[in-house]
Amino acid sequence: MLTPSIERLVTELARLPGIGPRSAQRLAFHLMRDAERAPALAAALAAVSERVSLCPECFAFAEDGRCPICSDPRRDATLLCAVEEPSAILPIEATNEFRGRYHVLGGALSPIDGIDPEDLRIAELLGRVEGDGVAELVIATNPTMSGEATALYLADLVRGRVRVTRLASGLPVGADVEHADELTLARALLGRREL
Amino acid sequence: MLTPSIERLVTELARLPGIGPRSAQRLAFHLMRDAERAPALAAALAAVSERVSLCPECFAFAEDGRCPICSDPRRDATLLCAVEEPSAILPIEATNEFRGRYHVLGGALSPIDGIDPEDLRIAELLGRVEGDGVAELVIATNPTMSGEATALYLADLVRGRVRVTRLASGLPVGADVEHADELTLARALLGRREL
Repeated sequence: MLTPSIERLVTELARLPGIGPRSAQRLAFHLMRDAERAPALAAALAAVSERVSLCPECFAFAEDGRCPICSDPRRDATLLCAVEEPSAILPIEATNEFRGRYHVLGGALSPIDGIDPEDLRIAELLGRVEGDGVAELVIATNPTMSGEATALYLADLVRGRVRVTRLASGLPVGADVEHADELTLARALLGRREL
Repeated sequence: MLTPSIERLVTELARLPGIGPRSAQRLAFHLMRDAERAPALAAALAAVSERVSLCPECFAFAEDGRCPICSDPRRDATLLCAVEEPSAILPIEATNEFRGRYHVLGGALSPIDGIDPEDLRIAELLGRVEGDGVAELVIATNPTMSGEATALYLADLVRGRVRVTRLASGLPVGADVEHADELTLARALLGRREL
């Protein structure tokens, strides 16, 4: 009983992560409940695709030139944090523990998937590390096979020029030792700290 | 670190039912991953708001005149099912147990919220019941206080003219008696059937 445009909207919504066909239908009907909703979301989407570009320095999302973080003079320019994707910046910012700047690599090394160093923004990272007065590079790639490989690769490249650090890996806060997987527990042991 | 357009998109996405601020951020970043996604969804939304209207007969969503169900000559015109919202039609259609037509009331009676009979499409329903050769009105309003009140109100209005039925209320398939709430169990008892 869906009309062609509603079918199309449901299909588009169902492409979003975590949204199955039933949720997509529910969202579509919600968007059609009052005449304001769908155009408001459509306009917000159009604005994002028109106005948002990549920051020429860190490659995070930006509007009108540099991103809000690169254009903030209060950020510590000696601290640089390399992440895989722009979406990793938000949770790091939420910790309030990092006052430096970021560098979005655009992914992680994965020879099997054909992602080699030249496919990531590694040359640009080296340029920043060499030219910008960076003292420490915090590598915040994911604790996965490809994220670890990328971290090791980057560390080898910049070692000797700046301090290189990596996000700690171990038990998440609130977890219990009994149910931890062995890889995480091994990391927690290897990274144990003096009390 | 979000730019103004991204903030706006996150706000719009977070207005959708079941989508909190964090999911909204995740969806926004997903939509910005490749340049096609956001415009495709924006276009689908724009098409819905431009093309979709209400069916002049049943008030479900329609495109170019009558809705797909009202314009289908194979549907049984003697059976009419009254629902609160268009979103209720889809699950009823999915049962394959109903081959009649629908009538969307546009809500349920709720004097506390100021929703009186003249706020619903009750006059239009009476018009159809009187004029269209309807033999049975299946009342499929929700089994809630206001849905039940609406069902009783409608039943009183059309009683004597057509057969009036109501969706059965009772234990959902797969439930167990032990954990059923007393109201549902009371309905299941009152509506018990000969085996």
